[in-house]
Amino acid sequence: MSRDTFNGWVGKDLSAADGNLVFEEFEPKRWEETDVDIEITHTGMCGSDIHTLSGGWHAPEFPYVVGHEIVGRAVRVGSKVNHIKVGDRVGVGAQSDSCGECEFCLSGNETVCDKWVQTYDSRHLNGDRSQGGYADHARVPGRFVIDLTPYPNIPSELLAPMLCGGITMFSPLKRYGAGPGKKVGIIGLGGLGHFGVMFAKAMGADEVVVISRNKSKEADAKKLGADRIIATSEPGWEKTYGSTLDIIINTADSTTMPFSGYLRLLRPLGTIVQVGAPDGNMPAWSGFALFMKQRSIAGSIVGSRADIKEMLQLANDKEVKTWANFFPMTKVNDAIKAFNRSEARYRIVLINEKHVH
Amino acid sequence: MSRDTFNGWVGKDLSAADGNLVFEEFEPKRWEETDVDIEITHTGMCGSDIHTLSGGWHAPEFPYVVGHEIVGRAVRVGSKVNHIKVGDRVGVGAQSDSCGECEFCLSGNETVCDKWVQTYDSRHLNGDRSQGGYADHARVPGRFVIDLTPYPNIPSELLAPMLCGGITMFSPLKRYGAGPGKKVGIIGLGGLGHFGVMFAKAMGADEVVVISRNKSKEADAKKLGADRIIATSEPGWEKTYGSTLDIIINTADSTTMPFSGYLRLLRPLGTIVQVGAPDGNMPAWSGFALFMKQRSIAGSIVGSRADIKEMLQLANDKEVKTWANFFPMTKVNDAIKAFNRSEARYRIVLINEKHVH
Repeated sequence: MSRDTFNGWVGKDLSAADGNLVFEEFEPKRWEETDVDIEITHTGMCGSDIHTLSGGWHAPEFPYVVGHEIVGRAVRVGSKVNHIKVGDRVGVGAQSDSCGECEFCLSGNETVCDKWVQTYDSRHLNGDRSQGGYADHARVPGRFVIDLTPYPNIPSELLAPMLCGGITMFSPLKRYGAGPGKKVGIIGLGGLGHFGVMFAKAMGADEVVVISRNKSKEADAKKLGADRIIATSEPGWEKTYGSTLDIIINTADSTTMPFSGYLRLLRPLGTIVQVGAPDGNMPAWSGFALFMKQRSIAGSIVGSRADIKEMLQLANDKEVKTWANFFPMTKVNDAIKAFNRSEARYRIVLINEKHVH
Repeated sequence: MSRDTFNGWVGKDLSAADGNLVFEEFEPKRWEETDVDIEITHTGMCGSDIHTLSGGWHAPEFPYVVGHEIVGRAVRVGSKVNHIKVGDRVGVGAQSDSCGECEFCLSGNETVCDKWVQTYDSRHLNGDRSQGGYADHARVPGRFVIDLTPYPNIPSELLAPMLCGGITMFSPLKRYGAGPGKKVGIIGLGGLGHFGVMFAKAMGADEVVVISRNKSKEADAKKLGADRIIATSEPGWEKTYGSTLDIIINTADSTTMPFSGYLRLLRPLGTIVQVGAPDGNMPAWSGFALFMKQRSIAGSIVGSRADIKEMLQLANDKEVKTWANFFPMTKVNDAIKAFNRSEARYRIVLINEKHVH
């Protein structure tokens, strides 16, 4: 039996990470009645896309299509999918399947399921390669297709980046209690950090503080809703601002970041959540900075579907607006080059013009 | 007004850490009606005593008396102390005061109070130096003197080491849910680790696993109640035993410990608690090992008075028996030398023979 084919921007070797994707046919997973085919209108460009293509995290299995911030219209819906109908606006994030049966899946922690399937450069439960959203279409297990019809206030070009970048920040902010009475720090004002500021503010945190190497992004930080900015180039910053924050989300991914200093910014019993993913090890750090005040370091990876829905409801209701630069998907290689020059303020979104009516 | 004096084993310079304490007079804090004077019968020797005297953690302020695992009899009780009466068996751990008014004190987290007073080499709230229990007597703010009369099954020579060594393990085991349904790992089988194994078992954990460089202490581990031992000298141990433990308490304090491997032993959503305190930094580590399974690293420092009481009740009821070597307090310098030769199996207790009738 012949396989279906889709068209998309295929990474063929490590040069893809420099802006060398090729538009051609690729095979999606074989159809199952639990699947949904999506006609893609918008795909966010996530740092993970470039890190994966460049082999920074692991050896990628070329050829494949990246992209895990996907928005589009359902054009084929498997007979076993009940929550989506043809024509619905739908979305897919960084995870596109899990076993559905383990204690983690059953407790809403499907992001740590042993059988979790990443939306691209991974394998579906049926053994087929997973393919992402820099493409005209995507085929995704229905359980991980989010119905976007309840969030009419969020335009697709602003919604797409929330499906990985947004949820990566929202989920730990929620888990560690960001809200009234709490002071939140966001380390790094980039694609992730800008969501962190906006969501922490939308959740009602008393104070939101950006921690950055210098104050060059202070104006942006304040426009996004931050109350102030701490520059780690300022001598004595660890002491001056020590023990002031309840929750910190760390988007920094430098292997030489001042991690012990970040820890010292936490109030007693506070938590720093690491979401930035360095290409190498996290730096050596002070055990005393951790245990003298019973601070914690938590890991977090994207977020569950329940969290995604909660985030979208909040964004819909509070009109959280992603800051993004837009490229036609046909210019994806230019977009990658702009990303690599750190020009994104603060996300990049590819618009598939043939599907945007 | 002349100051009271007590007699004790005074550290006068860094050589104290090699077993060079001198028996002489020292000044306790000035008396307040909130204080209790204790005639000391037993004092445990804690790794902190030697680390502090040697300046491994910070520059010590000589002369002073160490010892923060103190058991004895109340011989003078301030008029403002209600829970202790003269003659009671009492105990003092590593913390001897806190402000009593901050959000942390009021929520049972007095160990992270900004004004916490360490039992020695610290300053009381009245500004006087704090002095420990390698002595005939101790003067301690009553709020931090534990009434030991409810725990008759625990002999003083086995109880003393629980007041710092024991609680350092019990408190995080409790906080992170050790008990039925949980698998617990204890890294390092020493003075702290041996308590970890016994308490995790007493709390009803499904499985207790010791993680050690090799299997030389396997027989002891099993006698203490461990189900098995993982040797990190065994090639591939991180993978073989990966994702198997819910909670790990890490007593290791080497700056070159295989910390990323320890993280990988945790099941998804699991927590490793760092209680070992290296003289230098904790090693560089893999961010991926943390966030891919949403693991956490927590810091913990001793435990609250409520936790101490809960631990003692458990030890009393389940007959948890400290493994210890005993020295007359007059031989404290020999005891330090034995400690430095790593001969303790697994705690050392100084017995003040003139007060043991």
